[in-house]
Formats: sequence, C-alpha cells, structure tokens
Amino acid sequence: MKLLRYGAAGQEKPGLLDAQGVLRDLSGIIPDVAGKALTSGSLAKIKALDPQTLPKVDGAPRIGACVGDVRNFIAVGLNFADHAAETGAEIPKEPILFNKAPNCIVGPNDDVIIPKGSKKTDWEVELAIVIGDGGSYIPEDKAFAAIAGFAVCNDVSEREFQIERGGQWAKGKGCPTFGPLGPWLVTTDEVKDVQNLAMWLEVDGERVQNGSSKTMIFGCAYLVHYISQFMRLDPGDVITTGTPPGVGLGFKPPRFLKGGEVVKLGIEGLGEQQQHFKAYQG
Amino acid sequence: MKLLRYGAAGQEKPGLLDAQGVLRDLSGIIPDVAGKALTSGSLAKIKALDPQTLPKVDGAPRIGACVGDVRNFIAVGLNFADHAAETGAEIPKEPILFNKAPNCIVGPNDDVIIPKGSKKTDWEVELAIVIGDGGSYIPEDKAFAAIAGFAVCNDVSEREFQIERGGQWAKGKGCPTFGPLGPWLVTTDEVKDVQNLAMWLEVDGERVQNGSSKTMIFGCAYLVHYISQFMRLDPGDVITTGTPPGVGLGFKPPRFLKGGEVVKLGIEGLGEQQQHFKAYQG
Repeated sequence: MKLLRYGAAGQEKPGLLDAQGVLRDLSGIIPDVAGKALTSGSLAKIKALDPQTLPKVDGAPRIGACVGDVRNFIAVGLNFADHAAETGAEIPKEPILFNKAPNCIVGPNDDVIIPKGSKKTDWEVELAIVIGDGGSYIPEDKAFAAIAGFAVCNDVSEREFQIERGGQWAKGKGCPTFGPLGPWLVTTDEVKDVQNLAMWLEVDGERVQNGSSKTMIFGCAYLVHYISQFMRLDPGDVITTGTPPGVGLGFKPPRFLKGGEVVKLGIEGLGEQQQHFKAYQG
Repeated sequence: MKLLRYGAAGQEKPGLLDAQGVLRDLSGIIPDVAGKALTSGSLAKIKALDPQTLPKVDGAPRIGACVGDVRNFIAVGLNFADHAAETGAEIPKEPILFNKAPNCIVGPNDDVIIPKGSKKTDWEVELAIVIGDGGSYIPEDKAFAAIAGFAVCNDVSEREFQIERGGQWAKGKGCPTFGPLGPWLVTTDEVKDVQNLAMWLEVDGERVQNGSSKTMIFGCAYLVHYISQFMRLDPGDVITTGTPPGVGLGFKPPRFLKGGEVVKLGIEGLGEQQQHFKAYQG
C-alpha cells in the first residue's frame, strides 16, 4: 500500500493512493498515518479493505509528510562506501547514528528554508525506514516484520553547523524544514528488494546524485537490528539510512544551495519530491 | 507551581503539588503536563486557579516523568568546566548538543535497566529545562520567557556505547529507562536563580556528585538561545544541561553501576529522585 497524508500543514488527514493512483480518504479508518496506526495489526486491517469503499479525495491537495507525530527521527551517517570516500571519512565499522529534530519534518514538496547565517546548506537523497511494530533487541531476521514501510527523505544538512560548530552532528541536521519526507509510506510488502532501488537527486535540473540502495554499507534489516540494541524503536519512528555520493560537500570545490534553487529527488518505487529552497527572511 | 504526572506508567494524569504539599488533580484543566499545556498562556490559567478547588488525590500513587509526550529530548555535553576536566576533554567553545531518545524518559523513581551487554552504565545528575512557548532564533534576553520550568534529570549514560562504538553519542544515551525526569516541573517563577542551585547524586548512600548549577559553562538562557539557532524549540521539548563532576567515568579507576545499586539524586528546589538499577533480564 501507499499511505500518505494530505491537506494543510498541521491539519493533514490520512490517505491511501489506490492501484489506479486515486487518492482516498482513510480518516474514517485511522486517525493519522502515525504511531499505533502503523503496527502490523493496524496495517493488516487497512490492507483488508476494498479501497473502492473509501471516499475519493477531490482536487489536488498539498501532500504532507507521509508520517505524522514522529517522536524519534534517527539518521545514519556515512552509510554508503562511496559517499564516505567523497567526504574524506573512513568507512565506519559500525553504523554512525545521530538525530534530526522531529519537528524539522515537512511535506515532500514544501519549501525548505536555508537557515539564518547558513553558507553550507546541502542535499542528501535518502531511503527512510518507517517503524511499524518496532521493539528492543530485534533480531536481524525479524527486522522486516518490525518495519511498516519505506519513504523518500531529503536529509537536508548544514555542513558548517554539522561539522565546524563543536562536537556531534545534531546542530546541522534538524533546522526547521530540513526533513522533507514522502510522498508516500510504501509498505514493506510492496517493496520487492529494498537493497536494490535506484536513488537520484537533481539541483536545478542537473543530476548530482545517482546511486542505489545496493551500495549501502549496512542494509535496512541490519540497521533496525543494530539501532534496537541501543534504543527502543516505537511505531512511527523514522530512520533515514544515509546518502549515496554526490552531495555538495563532496564537490571540488564544494557547492551549496542558494535561495531560488530547486531540488528534485526520488527513489525507485517510493516516489519523488521537489523543494524550492528559500533564503531565511528574518 | 510544581506540576507533575501521577499514576501507572503510560496512564499518567496531570497534577499539581500545592503549597501544603498536597497532590491535586489537574485533569479537569489540562489533558496532560505536555505540549501546548506548557505554553505561557496555559500556565497563566493554571496559576490563576485556587488550588483548593482542585480535587485532592488520595493515597501515594506512582510519580511519572513530569513531562509527557516529549518530542525532542536534547542534551548538552561537557557543560561543567570541572566535569570536562575529569573526562579529559577540553572545555567546549560552543555547547555540544546530542539527543536522547524521548522514549527513554521514565518516572523519577522508576527502575533503571542496565542494557544487555553493558559494562559501563554511568550516572549524571542534571538540570533539565522544559520548553514553554519555545521558538526559533530566541534572543538570550527573551529565553526565560520561552521556558516553562525546570526539573531534575538523571542523564543515564552507557560509556562504551557512547564513546567506543563509532562516532556520535546517541547510542549510549537513549537506552530504555535512561531518562528519569522529575518529580516535578517547577515553573520559572518559582526558581529564584537557576544558576545557583546545589546538585548532588549518591550511589548506595555514598555522595559522588556534589556540584552547583553555578559552574555551568553555558547557562540556561544562553543554551535556549543557542539551540534555537539550530532547531525550533516546541512546547514540551526538554533540554538537559550537563552534569557536574563526579561521574563514574571520572573515577580512577572508572566505576560503573551494577544491578542492585540504588542511585539518589536531587537539585535544590527541584526535588529528588531514587532509582534501583537492575540488570537486563533477556
């Protein structure tokens, strides 16, 4: 299934994109695409419905982030061997984890605001895991059963804030609007091989990232297993799994985003995003 | 005011400790001590009530974390000059920020579980800021107006997970039960000088931390100002502000917690906590 959220920011309703590409209203079935609505039991109930019985949504509403009310937005750093190389970092022996502030999550096509004082705002197309049942100490061979589905994420990053402002990466990762997520949460049963999906990103029409989830150092099942050793994963938590090569920091000389530029990105089977980047207006 | 949450884990109700130390039920007034109930407007309404008109709570219920539904649990590292020294780190030029998984938050007297495989579970008495109105780009001289209040936090930490498992500290900071918070959220108007509060922690009756918030490198107002440059602070977000000297990692040789040990901690005017540490039972 393709689950999504539509409507004005902060007032999104849950929806489902049916096999014909028609948007249907799920608000009679679940309160939101969030939290407990993403457990395996809840998803099974939605899957058992005949989509034709759900009300059609008229017009072309704004698409919100495909998951609401995210409590823990975990990110994995340097998880593509060739991206690690372009940033000059060694290949990590264990996954590198950091957090994005959950309130940076926005819709896939919302504007992204370049923060006040930023000179190094960068892009990162990423595959996000949306947790379903979750848990602690999840065995790797049970990890997929703990996942609700997958989505496209732009892990927007401010490199000076991330790297040059003293320890830890959180400062450059959670600025408002730095987490476009969606358009859809594609449930695991619809993703044939999550470790073999094309991933791409364009800046003003120029293809700058062109990779595949097959070059991830640590795959999705391992990441869920690994992270669950350190924290409990709850329904609706989001893990964004790292980016392939081609970020602005890796250009020689580095290249960063300016107000007025447009970023398009997508992952095979998971949909596309497009953001207008805008300078902060104080 | 002293706001708190009482009742079984996951079913806490909002409460208020009146001037006589009587616990009163706030559930007719606010849904929870969380989110929008912590804005300045909402707190002003609670303050305008005559506490005698609120129902008394009978018995001695469990005390939950003093804030519910936390979305962003931000922590500041090495924020006491003498603690930085004991860990062998340099005094940071800017605040070091990292995240604790919000679902690690538990009541002030709940058991703390030493994670599977942990050999280096450590304690940290900390003063937590609970965000009220919050915002982005908050001027330092307006920071107190953005804060709802303060609370005691034990920033429980697994040092091997934090430091020896590859980049970033999040792995050792968000294990389940690693965030005892409370007993109370003491509103800003009741805290005369937040930068001059005694802070202490005992392990099995031995005083190991004995400090004061006056030795913080970056004070509470500056931290709120600073963090709001990098992420939006929302009502009910929690910032724990670093620990004074005396953590187990600083002992020579280092000393870590074992199942069966009892940790007591407190901050002047903000109350006390006591946790039984228990080995993980898989």
